[in-house]
Amino acid sequence: MEPTRPERAPGGHARRRDALRRLLREGGLDALLVTDLVNVRYLTGFTGSNAALLVHADDEADRGEDRTVLATDGRYTTQAAAQTPDLAVLVERACAPALLRDREGRDHEGIVGFDSAHVTVDGHADLLTALEHGELRRAPGLVETLRAVKEAGEVDALRQACAAADVALAGMIAAGGLVPGRTEREVARDLEERMREAGAEGPSFDTIVAAGAHAAIPHHRPTDAPLADGDLLTMDFGALVDGYHSDMTRTVLIGTPADWQRDLHDLVAEAAAAGRAALAPGVATRDVDAAARDVITAAGFGEQFVHGLGHGVGLVIHEAPAVSATATATLEAGMTVTVEPGVYLAGRGGVRIEDTLVVTDDGAAPLTQSPRDLEFRDDP
Amino acid sequence: MEPTRPERAPGGHARRRDALRRLLREGGLDALLVTDLVNVRYLTGFTGSNAALLVHADDEADRGEDRTVLATDGRYTTQAAAQTPDLAVLVERACAPALLRDREGRDHEGIVGFDSAHVTVDGHADLLTALEHGELRRAPGLVETLRAVKEAGEVDALRQACAAADVALAGMIAAGGLVPGRTEREVARDLEERMREAGAEGPSFDTIVAAGAHAAIPHHRPTDAPLADGDLLTMDFGALVDGYHSDMTRTVLIGTPADWQRDLHDLVAEAAAAGRAALAPGVATRDVDAAARDVITAAGFGEQFVHGLGHGVGLVIHEAPAVSATATATLEAGMTVTVEPGVYLAGRGGVRIEDTLVVTDDGAAPLTQSPRDLEFRDDP
Repeated sequence: MEPTRPERAPGGHARRRDALRRLLREGGLDALLVTDLVNVRYLTGFTGSNAALLVHADDEADRGEDRTVLATDGRYTTQAAAQTPDLAVLVERACAPALLRDREGRDHEGIVGFDSAHVTVDGHADLLTALEHGELRRAPGLVETLRAVKEAGEVDALRQACAAADVALAGMIAAGGLVPGRTEREVARDLEERMREAGAEGPSFDTIVAAGAHAAIPHHRPTDAPLADGDLLTMDFGALVDGYHSDMTRTVLIGTPADWQRDLHDLVAEAAAAGRAALAPGVATRDVDAAARDVITAAGFGEQFVHGLGHGVGLVIHEAPAVSATATATLEAGMTVTVEPGVYLAGRGGVRIEDTLVVTDDGAAPLTQSPRDLEFRDDP
Repeated sequence: MEPTRPERAPGGHARRRDALRRLLREGGLDALLVTDLVNVRYLTGFTGSNAALLVHADDEADRGEDRTVLATDGRYTTQAAAQTPDLAVLVERACAPALLRDREGRDHEGIVGFDSAHVTVDGHADLLTALEHGELRRAPGLVETLRAVKEAGEVDALRQACAAADVALAGMIAAGGLVPGRTEREVARDLEERMREAGAEGPSFDTIVAAGAHAAIPHHRPTDAPLADGDLLTMDFGALVDGYHSDMTRTVLIGTPADWQRDLHDLVAEAAAAGRAALAPGVATRDVDAAARDVITAAGFGEQFVHGLGHGVGLVIHEAPAVSATATATLEAGMTVTVEPGVYLAGRGGVRIEDTLVVTDDGAAPLTQSPRDLEFRDDP
């Protein structure tokens, strides 16, 4: 009944569940209780707002797939039948405890992992009540580990999301959309409209447009403040395509840059280039952070670079791997990450330059393609 | 630096913290660690994406306010200074553990409550590591209890959000926006655009537009399916104003209704009216659910009303109090809730009618005002 949508990020959900089973075996788990909705979607294709999934490992008696069950509530029975025809569905409001109780009839022993980075303390108490036999064991981040390395179809969706943002920015500039008097809010709305026209389902997060002194606030919300001649203007925005999120920041100058603005932009651009150049399989993400941060620190602005260099991006705008000074991840081919150094000078403005890239066999390829220049040309 | 925005939902954040202190004393807590960002915003006005708040109860030595601390990370120092000039600010990436460690220098004893419905199992482990002295105790839902009863300024913001949705729907209908051939997605975009034009910051959740058989799916996502003559069309949408969320559903008929469609709509309208009429201070929300559900069950469609009758609405689209058969809340004047019975017939369509109301001293007043008729007139 639900019209089937062309799935541009090819599911292969059963294949993903098989990959998860390998992690379960390695971790000594008999099953994993998946409670995060994005993880449920990744493993099944189900997109309802209330769900949990119990993935069984294979054992000697049968394939784990035969005992793997999706739970959701009565609002979503039709949708679940359409989106996950290959899975048994349990209809209950409190999905996660229901899956453990449902299991009781068949599996009296065994270790069930749960995502301790997602399950709350109260939720855990409910799970303990529901589980009469066996053991609950912390198992955070297993699905996130799978999600961090993208399949070709996922990279394609991200590429389309990044292209929608590129097209929106170029179209807005060509239409003379960056002129004194226009407000931050108008620029944000314009970018979002153009991303939709370019095929996005919507923006991938709240669009940041920060002019003048506002550009010193990394996560500024657009206001009715007008752009003024001489303003640094930071635009941090992205598009959502098939559930995949793009992320890009450009900082441009309204009018003609002062020397300090040009110097600051040059510095951040150099740091961004160093970060992008450091991306390759086998590299620790904290070393990528250091490659960019060292450039900024050497110029005396280390204290004004107040955040990590980047983050993984996919079904969630911030996901594994983290790319920061304290991160512990190592890059693999197929990971998609942002590189986004920034320097913020309170009361004066700031510069951030951000791209989304996919790690390749010998480096990384940018998915965002917009020019990174401080000055822009609005003649098409 | 951040231009001050006229605060239409007057903060009185310090007053809210004082109200929370009364709950802390009643609960035997010396302090509460607030980790949910919406709760932090409610208590402080701070809107950044990473924060926690440690609210101290008053004691004999001083006022708890003097020791109450907001934590956020380096991206938000400027914003925190502007939004919470009355609070001490601690700058740390891992906000909640940092607040407990920071406390160690001064408060060696005492019971610190934490929101066990929000803190994860891993997060709790981090808190235990950070807390060298004193005791951590589960204290879920305290701030939600305060939030459930709205101040006048909050009701005003909700009223404006509801009005933006009303204006959008009326304007779309007057402009001939509900005609065969138009797609669900176009209708959704049209409503969202018109809500923005009416002053909303954006939609308050993903707009649901479900035509024909899709109307049997309570949380259908809009597709490129065109409206057709004879379709039931369900539109569930709302506007965001100053952080407050409106929520309304209307089901209308494209063309001329068949008898079964008219009967179904009459039934749901009767149930909705019964639910609204049941709202009053002192009434258990499960009795409100029953008032509406009994109407539908008596007509033989109880199995097809697959969700609770409603929910509280405010800074979050679903918040306390729940209005369902299993809910345990009792209504108080100032609570704002939805009443939204629905009947869903797989393969044929469905009807849901939803309003947002504020509980008054002797009943409830609707905040959403759109006509609830099955047929609409598109001559302005």
